[in-house]
Formats: sequence, structure tokens, C-alpha cells
Amino acid sequence: MNDDAKSKKHTGADKPATVNILFSPDGVGVEVPRGTSILAAARKAGVFINSLCGGDGVCGKCRVNVRLGRVRGRTSEFLTRDEIREGFVLACEANAESDLVVEIPETSRIIGEVREADPTAARFSADEHLPRSAEELRPLFRKHYIELTPPTLEDNTADLERLEFELGKVSGDTEFQMGLKVIRRLPETLRKANWKVTASTAYRGALTEITDVAPGNTARKNLGIAVDLGTTTVVAQLIDLVAGQTIGAAAKYSAQIPYGGDVVRRILYVAREPDGLAQFQELTANDVCMLVQELQDRYRLGIGDISAVVAAGNTTMMHLLLGLDPNEIRREPYVGVAYGPPPFRAAELGIKIDPRGLLYCMPCISSFVGADIVAGVLATGIHKRDKLSILIDIGTNGEIVIGNREWMMCASASAGPAFEGSESSCGMRATAGALDHIRLADCETLLSFSTVGDSDPTGICGSGYVDLLAELLRLGIIDRTGRINTDMDCSRVRVRKDNVPEFVVFGADETGHGKDIFLAQEDILNLLRAKAAIYAATLIMIKQLSLSFDEIDEIMVAGAFGNYLDIENAVLIGLLPDVAATKIRFVGNTSIAGARLACLSRQRYAEAHEIARSMTYCELSTDAKFMDEFVSASFFPHTDIERFPSVMAKLGR
Amino acid sequence: MNDDAKSKKHTGADKPATVNILFSPDGVGVEVPRGTSILAAARKAGVFINSLCGGDGVCGKCRVNVRLGRVRGRTSEFLTRDEIREGFVLACEANAESDLVVEIPETSRIIGEVREADPTAARFSADEHLPRSAEELRPLFRKHYIELTPPTLEDNTADLERLEFELGKVSGDTEFQMGLKVIRRLPETLRKANWKVTASTAYRGALTEITDVAPGNTARKNLGIAVDLGTTTVVAQLIDLVAGQTIGAAAKYSAQIPYGGDVVRRILYVAREPDGLAQFQELTANDVCMLVQELQDRYRLGIGDISAVVAAGNTTMMHLLLGLDPNEIRREPYVGVAYGPPPFRAAELGIKIDPRGLLYCMPCISSFVGADIVAGVLATGIHKRDKLSILIDIGTNGEIVIGNREWMMCASASAGPAFEGSESSCGMRATAGALDHIRLADCETLLSFSTVGDSDPTGICGSGYVDLLAELLRLGIIDRTGRINTDMDCSRVRVRKDNVPEFVVFGADETGHGKDIFLAQEDILNLLRAKAAIYAATLIMIKQLSLSFDEIDEIMVAGAFGNYLDIENAVLIGLLPDVAATKIRFVGNTSIAGARLACLSRQRYAEAHEIARSMTYCELSTDAKFMDEFVSASFFPHTDIERFPSVMAKLGR
Repeated sequence: MNDDAKSKKHTGADKPATVNILFSPDGVGVEVPRGTSILAAARKAGVFINSLCGGDGVCGKCRVNVRLGRVRGRTSEFLTRDEIREGFVLACEANAESDLVVEIPETSRIIGEVREADPTAARFSADEHLPRSAEELRPLFRKHYIELTPPTLEDNTADLERLEFELGKVSGDTEFQMGLKVIRRLPETLRKANWKVTASTAYRGALTEITDVAPGNTARKNLGIAVDLGTTTVVAQLIDLVAGQTIGAAAKYSAQIPYGGDVVRRILYVAREPDGLAQFQELTANDVCMLVQELQDRYRLGIGDISAVVAAGNTTMMHLLLGLDPNEIRREPYVGVAYGPPPFRAAELGIKIDPRGLLYCMPCISSFVGADIVAGVLATGIHKRDKLSILIDIGTNGEIVIGNREWMMCASASAGPAFEGSESSCGMRATAGALDHIRLADCETLLSFSTVGDSDPTGICGSGYVDLLAELLRLGIIDRTGRINTDMDCSRVRVRKDNVPEFVVFGADETGHGKDIFLAQEDILNLLRAKAAIYAATLIMIKQLSLSFDEIDEIMVAGAFGNYLDIENAVLIGLLPDVAATKIRFVGNTSIAGARLACLSRQRYAEAHEIARSMTYCELSTDAKFMDEFVSASFFPHTDIERFPSVMAKLGR
Repeated sequence: MNDDAKSKKHTGADKPATVNILFSPDGVGVEVPRGTSILAAARKAGVFINSLCGGDGVCGKCRVNVRLGRVRGRTSEFLTRDEIREGFVLACEANAESDLVVEIPETSRIIGEVREADPTAARFSADEHLPRSAEELRPLFRKHYIELTPPTLEDNTADLERLEFELGKVSGDTEFQMGLKVIRRLPETLRKANWKVTASTAYRGALTEITDVAPGNTARKNLGIAVDLGTTTVVAQLIDLVAGQTIGAAAKYSAQIPYGGDVVRRILYVAREPDGLAQFQELTANDVCMLVQELQDRYRLGIGDISAVVAAGNTTMMHLLLGLDPNEIRREPYVGVAYGPPPFRAAELGIKIDPRGLLYCMPCISSFVGADIVAGVLATGIHKRDKLSILIDIGTNGEIVIGNREWMMCASASAGPAFEGSESSCGMRATAGALDHIRLADCETLLSFSTVGDSDPTGICGSGYVDLLAELLRLGIIDRTGRINTDMDCSRVRVRKDNVPEFVVFGADETGHGKDIFLAQEDILNLLRAKAAIYAATLIMIKQLSLSFDEIDEIMVAGAFGNYLDIENAVLIGLLPDVAATKIRFVGNTSIAGARLACLSRQRYAEAHEIARSMTYCELSTDAKFMDEFVSASFFPHTDIERFPSVMAKLGR
């Protein structure tokens, strides 16, 4: 929300304190404090208005028609002149000044519409550098073409046992399970197909389920879906389980965003609303369905072509996907319902793939270290290395894993979504128009910059913020506490009416949406807190383990930073420890990479469970030292700059 | 059908060859040859009339009202004078002489009504002599009471993993599976129950399914059902899975009898009728349901108290229970759909027990050697003995197993239902009034006899026939070819109008139904063929294995003979080989005994599959030597009487 919108909120304190809003066609009314946005009022009333961006005013999805009453707020580039004349406003930008009648058009009700293939999606599918050997290609879901010997008087085994025997030979599986309906169809299928059939099998641990037997050879078409169920973004990859390759990817915003940007708010919603859990389960499954549909359409597939879905995500998102009550996750002693649930029929969860296809969940470790982290360890191979590695996954929470083949420890730090581009003045996710790289020649001059998709800039994403903070620090435009230096002779530095300084990166004439792109003082403090939490958590773990960063062989940074993260700048601002740049690697979205590996390999899926079981969880929220370290880390790069010798040199100390 | 009824069929050849019968309230018409019974016409028309006895005129269930037209047939003791005046007849006894309008009352539509606990049922529950050690008591379905340690910050495993860990400790099971609905209920159940719960688990081979988690301690009530799905009789036992004891038993006639007395006729029906398979599946499941209901009522149980059903039966009956197409069973190369199917949710099959309870099928060996035989081997322990044993199970087919712990061979001989008391003039099953033992002092005088339930005699069951044949043979009333000696001065021997002789056992004044009980010449030939088939099959196997009967340690005879089988007489007529009487033992219904053992022990259930897998099947229908041996055995006791030295002595040769 920009300065203008903000300031409007503070006017008119002499008017009535609350207003009534009636939503049509729902016929639901609600009383809210005057100045409340229509979107917030709708949430309070339990009326659904689509809002992909979560109320940031950047998606333009939440248009509503004010039929009666006065609202205040800025006009939006998402509305045409005619629409504005007819009374349309963005619900997130329009604040109620009087009693209102608000009509919600049908188009603002569509939940989580699939977007054009996200530019970030391409990046995820490029992660094929991850270890995977050819002999490991035993996907969770397999198809085997078998030519059975027809029965004779001398060899008159029953159909099922004949099939199982041959399938055992070609698959190496020993104990089978099969649904009654499939067995009932078996004699006709086998005979009509002249005993040449394709058997589909699904891994169920000690048992293998024969999910279908189809005539002829259909074994060449065997597709799976890997899903990263992020709090903010849901990403799906279509995987060729025969070739062991990723075919394509799609991404969308989580349909849960209107209900809260972080998981705790969503858990509270579920606890409060009578059908909250069922509603969230459906939202989550629909997100997956829409991405599956998008990939099916793009690659011209039928619904039956996709046989398995493997999902990774944080513990709450996994609970919501399965319709498990997440309420105990947020309450001491922080306990989930199931961390390593068995596979389920995807159809039972409303996920539309092959009706007999399965949904596999990557296992979670604890309430706040989820399946995304287990998938990350699996993908990066930390658990197989002799030497010590660290995985830092930066999302709404920052999760850290330290360990090697012998032991692993993990922790979670509440970083906030600043590096995800959320809740900052001009923050955005790493999609088209996001500033993801920047160099300043001096206080006035941009040396270089890039945006995702090479579009005109419309905001700043995580890697852009890392660069920006480092450049401002290097040039002395911000000091080590993060304060913007207003004494400097710099036309990019301006001071708001409320005396808060901002650094303007692009003027309105240079941007894709005709608005300034800037970094406000409070944004810097949010980013400072986020980096401090992540660094402090990492340091606490290192200390608890009586290690030093020098003993770590590799630090891998994962997260939705876009295609790019300048490691040197991440060290400079103190997000990452000051070790040799060659020891730090940006590894992208390891959550989906791990889900994909598991989808392609039963062994890897089993390994993921081993990872989850063997991981030690380190609870930071109850560790008094964490707060000390957090405060010490709330400097660029750190209170104790001696810990960052390379930075000390660069900053000329 | 008695002589009178028979002869009526042959009168009036000058009248119209066919008649039309209209059934009301169905409104279905059918054209049949004149003289066809109403029951047969109804079957042809696809109209259901209940007929527990399969058209033998002894159950009185098939009463219908002839509204228009003429029928011929004897009157029945099942009809009152008033009913006869109103036009009621037994459909099986009334033959159409003209076009008819037949009304079927609702009471004749009830399928397979549960009878009073069959006297035979008691016998089955007495088979507790069978081997079973206490440490084997790990039933297929178990309940474990667990007191979980509530989670703390230091021990914050998820609910599911907490449960599985503790359950693993108390049960010894390692890998678990759990349905989504049960997992979803878990957090509430655990907390409301203060972490003290009972977990129900079901064996699924390599996996153990947790089917339910209930508050408090309900582990003491865990009941299972063992079922013997006979072609003719269905028997169920209620089993206390905690104490390892049989609580009670119930039996009923198969609801499939009206569709054919043997499995081949039923298979043909299924193949012919569009919904035949679904119809038979339902009939079979309903039979089980009715027995379960009967036992629940008798022992005041709720539907949720019974957790598992274990069924044994011949291969066709197992197919019909599961709704698997049995058509290939009767066609070369005689192949079933599944011999060792996995367990299924009982509810999926329409069997009403605990909704999450399972149905387990004992495994079959081949199309004609079924799960009843595997159960028999399990119950008798042949597969564990060092010495060689033979199991002969005499039903509609005679099945023979020879072997020991190292190898086993089995065969099936088409004996026909003569020893089941079916298709003979006065044959009946071993229920109340059945003559099951008889001694003749001489041609005229009965020395002793007994009937099932000590009722007035109403017919002859298998063991009665064995005795009768032996007595008649001993007294020279029949010769070794089975021919009745009409030259003898014996008032019990009479000759029918068609010159066929009969031996009258009881005159009409001595019986429970006021009709003669006799043995007709054709009955003797049926019995001779049956015993010849069984003996020939046994001998062929002995020869194929290059053995002699002397090398066999024990011969066990199983089957629905009633409480009793005179072994000496069975040898005398050549049904069993002439070995020392101490080597032959009557073991009763081993099919249900084996099902019960499996129900009580996962190890035994797994053993049953091992038995089925390791058994060699010997196909007799294609063995030319079988016909030779069958012909040779079609003498009392055998063409080659030297094989029966003890009989030779008794018959004074």
C-alpha cells in the first residue's frame, strides 16, 4: 500500500467509528471500523472475494461494485475508466467511509485461477543437476507390459496368480495387493487382450498394489506430478516416469492467501470456521487440480495419463491437503496429526488424475519443519555425504538443516515473508517484472539491473532486495543498523510526510505500472529482521553442535528467489555466514526437486522417510540464546563485524 | 420324488404337448412342456420361488396358489386341508396339466431364511481337538489397548507416529497402513480419550492395517466369523478372538440351491443371465449375513462387534462370494480368476459386520480343489507331519489330498451328491429325522437305528446310506454289482411297476412324514458310482506316487456325514481302502475348522497360502487310467476283492 493510501486511512477521525457493509448477492452484512477495506470486511463477513495477491493491490482480481455509499482509496490501473464510472473498485484498495452495499461479480469469485506458466516454473525444471543414477529409476508408480503364457491343462494357475507371477519376474516386487473391482475385470481383460496386457503398480511400502490391468502395451505412457505446496505459491511439475525426465511445469498462487499470508492465520481460520478444514482441503486439492489440468491441456494428455502425485510442503500445508486438523500444530507442545502418512487414492482427496492413481506425501519432521525440508535434504543429498553441509531454505519461515550421512539437525526460524517479496512497499514474487538483480555505480546511477522475464520493472523480489541492501550498504546510503542516510546528497533519497525516508529505485516514468519503485525505511527493517532470524538460527545450531562455519563443507541456499541469488551480496548483508564464496551454492526450489526424485524412485521415497526419522529437531522458540543471537545479528552484516572479515574489507574497515 | 409323482409325469401323452403358465404378481408368462413342475417353470421364467430343499418336496417352502388351471401331483404334509381347498400346492410337486395362473405369496419369496440352529452346527463347534497352541493366538483381526504418553515439547511426535510406535511395541507388527478417515479422526479421539485408546488392526500380509482407533479399552470384545460356504449348506461359527474359542454356530441351506444343485449348473446360470453374477454374489453374501445376524441376535451382539470373516468353500463358491466370473472354471483348461485373493473390506461385498472389518478368503488350489480343501489340510495338519496322510473330503465332489510336510498332491473326483443325501429317492441332509445309522439283524428285522435329533425318520443321510449298503451287502440282499436280489424271500424287497426293485427301510406308518423310506435300485447305482469315483481317484494318486496304502499313516475322512460315520462299513462297501480301522478317522467339517484356525492365527492363514502354493494338482478328468480304475471300483467293494482282505473275510469268501 503506498503512502497516499496509507495517509487516507488516517483522516476523518471525527466521523462515526463503525460502518455497516452489506454484500450482494450473498445478502450478508457486517459491521467494521470505518476505514476498513472492503476485502477485510468481506473476510470478516465470511464472504469470499478472490485476491491472488493477498490484498497488495497488485493483482487486480478483487474488483467489486459499490452500489451504495462512499469509499476512499486510490484508483487502480486494473480498472478501466468505464468501470470506475460504474462504481467498480478493488476491494483491497477501497476503504469504507460510510455504510455500503457492495456487489461481488461472479468473476471475482473464481478461486486461484491458473496463471500463464510462471517464468519461475522454467527454473524449477532446470534443476536436473541433482544426483540421480539410472538404476534408481523405479518410480512410485510403474507400468509393465507383460505377455502372459495362456493357461493350459498342464499350467492352469488362476488369472490373478498368473499375472502376479509374471509381474513379480519383471518388476522384482514380491507381495501384491489388488482391489476387488480390478480383479473382477481381470478375466475379460486378459482374454480380450490375448494375454498381452499392461499392469500398473503403485508402491505401498512392503506391498505393491496392482492398480489396473489394461489391454495391450500402454507402458510407455506413465506420467507423474511433483508438487511443491508453498504457503504462497503452488508449483507442479509433469514428470515422464519412463524417461525419468521433467516435461514441464506450472505454478499458481495458493488459493489460501485471501485467508491469511502465513500458516498460523490459516490454522486459526480452520479452527474458527465450522467447515474451515473441509474448505481448506478443497482449496488445496483444487490448486493441485488446476495445475494438473493446465499441464494436461498444454501437453494434450487425458485424465487417466497421470498416475501419481507426490507432494511436498510445510507441515501445515500437508495437513490441509489431507484434511487433517492442523490446530495442534500451533499450540504447545506443537504436534501434528501425521508426519509420514501412507499413500492415499488421489480421488479420495479430490485430486483428479487416473481414478485409481495415488497421492504420496513426502514426510514431515515436526510441526514447523515440513516435508519441503525433507525433500530438500533428499534433493541435495546432505544425508549421503561424508562431509558436513548446511541447507538454508528461505521462505516465509527460514529452515536450516545441518548434518551429514551420520546425523542431521534442523531448526525453523520465523523470518517473515520479506525475502519472498511480500509485505514490503514494492515487494513482489519472482514473476515477470520483478527486479531480481541490481548494481549501483554511485548514489545516483544504476550500473545494471535485470528483471524476471526482461519486463519493465513492477516491483522487487527477494534476490533484488539482497542486491539492493548490499549496494546501499556498500555506498553508505544505509548504515549498518539499516538506517537510510538522509544527510547524503542523493536525489534518490526522499523523506515522506511522516519523516520516514525512502530510496527510490525507479521513478514512475521508468516502471511497468507508472508508479515509483522504492525501498522504505520500514522495508529495510523487515528485511533486517528476516536475515537476522535466519543467521541467528544457523549460528545457534552451529554453536549447539560445537562446530564452526569453517568445518562446513558446503552451504546450500534454497528458496523462491527467482533464477538468481548473488551469494556475495547475501554474505555482505549478513544473511549467510562469511565463508569462501565457493562453499556457498544457490540450489533453487529443492522442495519440488525432492518430490520429483521420490516420484521417480521408490528407494528415494523410502530414503525420505529415513531422513525424517533420523532428523533431530532443535526447537528455537524456547531457546533463550536465540533471542540474544537474533539481536546481535540485527546489524548489517552483524554487531560483531569480525565474524565477517571479507565484508569488513569491502566496507573498508 | 416318489414313485407316484414320477408315474404321473408319464401319463396323458395324448394331451397338448406344452402349456402356458402366468405368474402373478410378477405378470411373467412362460411356455413349458406339459407335466413340468411349477418350480421348474418358474425357474425358466426367471421368477423366484423359494425352495430350500432344491425341489425335493421335503422343505414345504415353495407353496404357491394355483388360481386357474389343473395340476397333478401328490398332496403334501406341509399343506393344511384349508390351504389345499384354497388351491395351494407345493411348486416342486405340482405339475402343470393345463395353462395355469399361479400366484406366488410373499412368504415364498424369502430367500434362504435362517433356520433354527441346525443340529449339525453343534458338531462343527466340537472340533476343538484340532491342533492349536496358545502362542499361535495372533488373530487376523486384533485389538490392542494402549495408554499413550501425551506429547511434550521434548517428545512431540505426531499423533499417528506416536500411535504406530506404541502399537508396534505391543503387537510386534512393524509396517502399518491406515485409511484417511481414521487418521482424520485421530487427534480428537486421542485427546478426548486422554490418550487411552484401543487400536484395531487387520493383517494384510506384509502390512498391518489400523482399521480403527476407539476411546478406552474395548480390546476384550473381539469377535470373528468362520464360514464354510458349501454348495448345499452354509455354516458359520462365531469365534471369540481373545479367548480363542468358538462361541456358537449356525447353518442354513445355500440360497443358490433353487438355481442348481451343483456348481456347474450355477456357473451356467451366471453365464446365461445378464445380472447372474451380481445376483449370485448377493445371494452368497446374504447367506453369510443371515448367519451373522442369527449369531448376533443369539449372543446379543452389535453389528460393530464382529470384525472379520474368514471364508472357505469350493473354488466356484469362493468366486461367487467375491463376484468373480466363474465361467472359465468349467471350461478347458479350467482356470479361475483368483485362487489367493487379498482380504477385502467386508462391506464392499455386502457382508454386514463392523463397517471397517475385513473378509479373508482361504486360498484355493485349482478350479476343482478349493479353499475348503486347503482349510482341511490346515485343520488336520497333514502339511506338518513327517508321516504320510490322506484326507478324503466327501461332498458333491470328492477331494483327496495325499502328502506330508515335504510334498502334497490333490485331486478331485466328480462323485455326485449321493452321499450328501441329494438326488436319491429318500435322501436328505444330516438334519433332524435323517437316518444316520442302521443295523439289520436279518432281511426282515432292524437290529438298531438312529436318526439325527432322535426324530421320527424322514429320510436317509450319507452315513445312513453307508450303513445300509454295507448291511444289505453283508446279508446278500444286494450283490457285489449292487443289484437287489429279488429272488430272496424278503418282505422288504418290492418291485415297482417299471420292474425296478426297492428295499423298504421304514413303512409309511413308522416315519415322521407318513411316507415309505426306501432304497431304490437306481439309488444304489448312484451311490456305487460315487464311492467308485472316490476310491478310484485315491488309488490313481497312490499309484502315480508309487505308493501303497500300507505306507499311509492315517486316512482322514471329512464331510457333512452328520455326527457319525461307520468306518468299517465305509471300507466294506469300498468307499475307503481296506487298511486297519485304527488308521482311519472321521474328522467332520474340516473346511470350517481350517477357516476358524486361520481366523485365530495370522501364522495359520499364511500357512494356508503356503499349502495352496505347494500343493500339486493331479487332473483326473484327462487321465485315461482313471476311467479304468473307476470301472474296476464299480463293485462292492471292488472288482478285485483281493484288495479288501478284511471285507473278503466278512463276506465269507
